[in-house]
Amino acid sequence: MRIEGTSEIETNMTEAAHKDPLVLFMPSGKRGRFPVGTPVLDAARSLGVYVESVCGGRATCGRCQIEVQEGNFAKHKIVSSNDHISPLGPKEQRYASVRELPDGRRLSCSAQILGDLVIDVPQDTVINAQVVRKAASDRVIERNAAVQLCYVEVDEPDMHKPLGDLDRLKVMLEKDWGWKDLLIAPHLIPQVQGILRKGNWAVTAAIHRDMDSSRPFIVGLWPGLKNEAYGIACDIGSTTIAMHLVSLLSGRIVGSSGTSNPQIRFGEDLMSRVSYVMMNPDGREAMTKAVREAVNSLIGKVCAEGEVDRHDILDMVFVGNPIMHHLFLGIDPTELGQAPFALAVSGALQYWAHEIDIDVNRGARLYMLPCIAGHVGADAAGATLSEGPYRQDKMMLLVDVGTNAEIVLGNKDRVVAASSPTGPAFEGAEISSGQRAAPGAIERVRIDPETLEPRFRVIGVEKWSDEDGFAEAAAAVGVTGICGSAIIEIVAEMYLSGIISQDGVVDGAMAAKSPRIIPNGRTFSYLLHEGQQRITVTQNDIRAIQLAKAALYAGIKLLMEKLDIDHVDTIRFAGAFGSFIDPKYAMVLGLIPDCDLEEVKAVGNAAGTGALMALLNRGHRREIEQTVSKIEKIETALESKFQEHFINAMAMPNKVDAFPKLSQVVTWPEPKVAADDGEGGGRRRRRSRE
Amino acid sequence: MRIEGTSEIETNMTEAAHKDPLVLFMPSGKRGRFPVGTPVLDAARSLGVYVESVCGGRATCGRCQIEVQEGNFAKHKIVSSNDHISPLGPKEQRYASVRELPDGRRLSCSAQILGDLVIDVPQDTVINAQVVRKAASDRVIERNAAVQLCYVEVDEPDMHKPLGDLDRLKVMLEKDWGWKDLLIAPHLIPQVQGILRKGNWAVTAAIHRDMDSSRPFIVGLWPGLKNEAYGIACDIGSTTIAMHLVSLLSGRIVGSSGTSNPQIRFGEDLMSRVSYVMMNPDGREAMTKAVREAVNSLIGKVCAEGEVDRHDILDMVFVGNPIMHHLFLGIDPTELGQAPFALAVSGALQYWAHEIDIDVNRGARLYMLPCIAGHVGADAAGATLSEGPYRQDKMMLLVDVGTNAEIVLGNKDRVVAASSPTGPAFEGAEISSGQRAAPGAIERVRIDPETLEPRFRVIGVEKWSDEDGFAEAAAAVGVTGICGSAIIEIVAEMYLSGIISQDGVVDGAMAAKSPRIIPNGRTFSYLLHEGQQRITVTQNDIRAIQLAKAALYAGIKLLMEKLDIDHVDTIRFAGAFGSFIDPKYAMVLGLIPDCDLEEVKAVGNAAGTGALMALLNRGHRREIEQTVSKIEKIETALESKFQEHFINAMAMPNKVDAFPKLSQVVTWPEPKVAADDGEGGGRRRRRSRE
Repeated sequence: MRIEGTSEIETNMTEAAHKDPLVLFMPSGKRGRFPVGTPVLDAARSLGVYVESVCGGRATCGRCQIEVQEGNFAKHKIVSSNDHISPLGPKEQRYASVRELPDGRRLSCSAQILGDLVIDVPQDTVINAQVVRKAASDRVIERNAAVQLCYVEVDEPDMHKPLGDLDRLKVMLEKDWGWKDLLIAPHLIPQVQGILRKGNWAVTAAIHRDMDSSRPFIVGLWPGLKNEAYGIACDIGSTTIAMHLVSLLSGRIVGSSGTSNPQIRFGEDLMSRVSYVMMNPDGREAMTKAVREAVNSLIGKVCAEGEVDRHDILDMVFVGNPIMHHLFLGIDPTELGQAPFALAVSGALQYWAHEIDIDVNRGARLYMLPCIAGHVGADAAGATLSEGPYRQDKMMLLVDVGTNAEIVLGNKDRVVAASSPTGPAFEGAEISSGQRAAPGAIERVRIDPETLEPRFRVIGVEKWSDEDGFAEAAAAVGVTGICGSAIIEIVAEMYLSGIISQDGVVDGAMAAKSPRIIPNGRTFSYLLHEGQQRITVTQNDIRAIQLAKAALYAGIKLLMEKLDIDHVDTIRFAGAFGSFIDPKYAMVLGLIPDCDLEEVKAVGNAAGTGALMALLNRGHRREIEQTVSKIEKIETALESKFQEHFINAMAMPNKVDAFPKLSQVVTWPEPKVAADDGEGGGRRRRRSRE
Repeated sequence: MRIEGTSEIETNMTEAAHKDPLVLFMPSGKRGRFPVGTPVLDAARSLGVYVESVCGGRATCGRCQIEVQEGNFAKHKIVSSNDHISPLGPKEQRYASVRELPDGRRLSCSAQILGDLVIDVPQDTVINAQVVRKAASDRVIERNAAVQLCYVEVDEPDMHKPLGDLDRLKVMLEKDWGWKDLLIAPHLIPQVQGILRKGNWAVTAAIHRDMDSSRPFIVGLWPGLKNEAYGIACDIGSTTIAMHLVSLLSGRIVGSSGTSNPQIRFGEDLMSRVSYVMMNPDGREAMTKAVREAVNSLIGKVCAEGEVDRHDILDMVFVGNPIMHHLFLGIDPTELGQAPFALAVSGALQYWAHEIDIDVNRGARLYMLPCIAGHVGADAAGATLSEGPYRQDKMMLLVDVGTNAEIVLGNKDRVVAASSPTGPAFEGAEISSGQRAAPGAIERVRIDPETLEPRFRVIGVEKWSDEDGFAEAAAAVGVTGICGSAIIEIVAEMYLSGIISQDGVVDGAMAAKSPRIIPNGRTFSYLLHEGQQRITVTQNDIRAIQLAKAALYAGIKLLMEKLDIDHVDTIRFAGAFGSFIDPKYAMVLGLIPDCDLEEVKAVGNAAGTGALMALLNRGHRREIEQTVSKIEKIETALESKFQEHFINAMAMPNKVDAFPKLSQVVTWPEPKVAADDGEGGGRRRRRSRE
């Protein structure tokens, strides 16, 4: 296979004659020596470097592209050059002329190693899109999709060897691709003969290698070369269904979208949906139908965005909280509405997508992540997979705040999890001036500790309320209410500015200092804005937030005790709520324990990211299944210390726990001696505990 | 556990004190020593003796009954007595009072070994029924059904251990029954919680352990103890669909029935059905629907006969010729109508029964035996499994005669198979006076070689035609035609009586001897009966039979040559045709090679028997899959010697092959020197070869 070329090649070849060429693959860093003439694809495979290929080395699919890095890589002792790779052969030239090969790119199935090389395997950044109000961080997921496309040329039927057409297809899939003991999706059996003949005995099979049986399955079959297959990662939230459409071959996200969960019409929150099922004979069926229809139409939306035929979707991964999980799968969630909160099933599940009425390719599979416990669902498992506390040396706290907060705490040694009934206050539901995040809603607030005057921003307006031109800019949208996440910031600012005491009582004495402190029955409110709407923060609002944050903190505290730790190293806020709150204010309020603020991060829809990881790499499925089976679940309702932690956590930020790191960046208000004796506060607290 | 009893026991115990009791199980003959107090069921299991049990040793299902054989079994050195088994305990007494325990029977889960025992495990003879015109031989199939019923008591949900209900069910199925890595049929997932609660946490799961995945599957779930499960074995023939309904627990056939294949309305024979598909856009779909509906209604019929709820059917095994196989599974059979006769799939297949519209339990599975070749189908595989040439030391010829004859030949060393296009003559279709087997049809014939006078029997009449009272008895039904199988006998008798020559020509010279030889254009016919109908056998009829038998023999001969043998040791005639012809006449005509007549047996619907074997013992599935993969298939159309064998086989019984064994029991006619020169014969033969 030695090919003579320029004198430079000859020189190199002479120098390295005693050794085979050295090839380094980037970014994996894997390296090895290979005889001159070895196709680059074969070299990559023998090192375990992932390079996609559908056509099996025929230079027709173009999936195996690589790039030679030119230069002297002294650290690796490699002088790499395009002269060290074979020139474009006839097959590759044909591909380049028919399909287009970007400058510098080569087909690794055809390009042969002639000398030392540094080879770049282009990686597509897979998580690069925003999913409806839920940020996703950039990261590269190592690809190992459950579905692989395999092109084969099948022997024609032969009367001397009367194996069936399907059986000969299997023979070739084993011979060319190594698939043993292949099974086939039943709907394909009647189609095999037609497809083989249409493709003139050349077909592409989609092999699913992560069926719950241990045997690989033929799940799709097309005449000729089929060069693309897609997957769906979906998080079914109580409020929003969020979805990614991804190429299973490149890992690229080609569409991301979200839609409201239509079950909202049966009940705003989870428990009201369970009630609906209990009260209505067809309730479960109606909600299952509603969510499946929404998923199907969302698939249509992401497919339109990505210009993808929905029948090219071959694999799907879903996450959701336990009640969404059950309703989506057609399981009555009634048991989840009452102790002992028994899940019908906690382990991971696999279906044919059509079995649960999802309209994609008939051979598509659907994988549902495992649930951790009755209130810690497949969504928490997804977030756990995404953020990976179990992969950390540091102690990581992962919080997903919704009507129930799902809390996961741990590191590589041990992980514990719980849910805590925060109620809907964090979502703005129990706040007097609360509203959905929409234009006109206040989303940021600062209060001057001297004057107690606020300044704020509203959604849809660039300027702060104290900047010139705000009034004009805001005229179009108005100032209509407080959005869910902003309430955290407001209450924290009210505390930092001394308007409320450590116990959360609006200090009526401040009314003398500012007209914004206004009486409201036997308590006081803070007037945030006076316009078409009068927007105030009432004592009731503050109590609602206190109850919610105390529940969350008490749950976290129980888990910290279970692990015998007094602080956490890093905190991840998952979910929409986490993306819009300022970690500093969350900590000032005492939602979360003290931590270096640099280490508190919003991770957006981590549940969805986990689904995406499980979609693109089946290894992550085993990883999260094993992790979930090892996570220790704490049922907060059964823990005697929960009440004590809860009561301590009612204070700002906490009656007993110190926040030394936060104290380095926050100026705490002077303690209000009188606050504890305030009649309004005391009375109100008693009422709120009734 | 030593229980003091009569002095006899004490004596025995003393004598055997140095050794554990010896227990022999019959009919398996397996034996072993077990400590006093060992439950008999445990002893059986440890020896691999098959004893059914659903309740898992709770003495409630009654499936594990055994019987102690009393007496001195000198050969085995065992004195066995009911005193050597523990007396009825409270559980067993409760079972006996509630359910009934036949005299002498014990529940092996409760009965403990106290001394030496000979224990009889009652075997139900499973193949004991006649299936519509198809005889089945009595035999015992060792039971190892794919479906097992397992009763378990599941832990109630516990908030400290939030495993799902299904997951806890799996834990218990592993703990009590050893099932690892259980999967579950998707339709059961939403039902698990309700069933567990209805059964007060005691349920019976049906485990299918022969899914095409290697993992066991929960395919059924019932509250409390479920003590019965059924299976279906079905042979889809071109003309008749035959079915057995069997208890998977006892192996007993509880219903057997048959029905016409409704596809007959689309075409009488296989090729006309393929043509129908080719000519009609919805033809395949219509025929698939027709056969599935017929199967569903036949299931209703056998269930009514057995008083079984069709939803208690959990497993099914089907066989059929390649075209029936394809149409039943919804596969277009067009390719089977033309060379190279490509099967869509030849390997065994598994489905959920509902996937092919079979209405039984939603969790029922359907197993289809593999096909051997384009014209040697799953029915031939079933017959091969039933008769087992591959299990024989002797060389066995297995023939299933229909429109196509399926031929399997071999022994434990090597098996070959072929099909031969016999055409419909054997079914009476090309015979001038041919008719279906129905009252009035001639079914037996003898011709006096001296007088050339015939005597015969007709279906529906006891007497032979030459017996007194025949005319009166036959008056009711008439003498209306010749049934398919009788034509063999008539032509053979015509040959033996010298009416036709070795070459099959009706000897016109015989007209001088008998008025029954009558001119018919340029040839002669034999007048069998003159009544309301005139029933003759024409030269054309004889030619049709010659062509059919020559095709069959030539196929057999090719296989014999392939194995390099000049005789076979034993012959099995499968199918309806085989059940009604006399082997002697088949051999006189030269349908089959020479063989000891004692070794020629009709085995009825061997294909259906094979299906039944695969239903009751999943080991037989692997056995036939492996066997089929090893069978060498011969395509007669491609073998150059076929023509030569065919021409030789046109003669009676054969131009070149000797029939030494047959010659010992048959008096051959004098050779007719003139026959070969007969103008009619020569002309007729040329025409029939056109």
